Amino acid sequence: MIVTATQSDGAQIQEIAARAGVFNQEEIDCVREIWEDYLSTGPEECGYHFIVERGDAEKVLGFACYGPRDLADGVYDLYWIAVNPDTRRGGVGRRLLTASEEAVHSMGARILIAETSGTPLYEPTRKFYLGMGYAAEATIKDFYSEGDDLVIFTKHL
Amino acid sequence: MIVTATQSDGAQIQEIAARAGVFNQEEIDCVREIWEDYLSTGPEECGYHFIVERGDAEKVLGFACYGPRDLADGVYDLYWIAVNPDTRRGGVGRRLLTASEEAVHSMGARILIAETSGTPLYEPTRKFYLGMGYAAEATIKDFYSEGDDLVIFTKHL
Repeated sequence: MIVTATQSDGAQIQEIAARAGVFNQEEIDCVREIWEDYLSTGPEECGYHFIVERGDAEKVLGFACYGPRDLADGVYDLYWIAVNPDTRRGGVGRRLLTASEEAVHSMGARILIAETSGTPLYEPTRKFYLGMGYAAEATIKDFYSEGDDLVIFTKHL
Repeated sequence: MIVTATQSDGAQIQEIAARAGVFNQEEIDCVREIWEDYLSTGPEECGYHFIVERGDAEKVLGFACYGPRDLADGVYDLYWIAVNPDTRRGGVGRRLLTASEEAVHSMGARILIAETSGTPLYEPTRKFYLGMGYAAEATIKDFYSEGDDLVIFTKHL
């Protein structure tokens, strides 16, 4: 079941981010910081919305985080999406992304943007977005570091 | 003379943003908000650096604002650049942009990014970046609103 994340999901969200295998320490720390903002001020104030898919015994199977882009009309960013490594290939990522799209659309989004890396490590991520109907609309070369491009995926909702 | 902006420049910076003719009210409000952050917490903490070109009698001829992009190594954003409408065609914009590039390069930037709109109103802005050695590296269609694309200019420093 996909639901709005609550305080008790925090530890599992952090663990999933750490174990996902595609986030570096700075990114894992960033998930913790925005989670703390989300808990302390709420999604409207901080601009970060978290959802989780919960399985049996309150186990978090995956999470997604999205929010509005400043100074653009109806543009939302998918900041994070990650699935518990124990429960991969069960469609959790697809369900979380679909739920994120529905949520932002209901808040007025025209476009959802997902940014990722162009390196081989992120090829499964890029294939996932393409399979979900996203277009690899733009690339910024050497963005993350030399040889590590930013690829900007967009979906018009 | 191009210098780090100080408190007394604030009113003129706001006035230039309002009179520039290319920023909407939300954007003008955003300049004020980040200026207040800059004054209250300082550039390192808030991530926004302001510089101004000052003419005679402490007149602000233009300003620029830049800062580091999160989660990328050596990428800086040029958030704002605007010239006093009374003093256009005097090279103020070029000097502010060059000074911004030198400043971010000294802080470790590899890439400076300037985002702008693809509409006719911003054609002079786009020509300005191209003339300063930027590449129109990526476009996100209908980003700002339907028919109003985001154009991402980059310069490798």
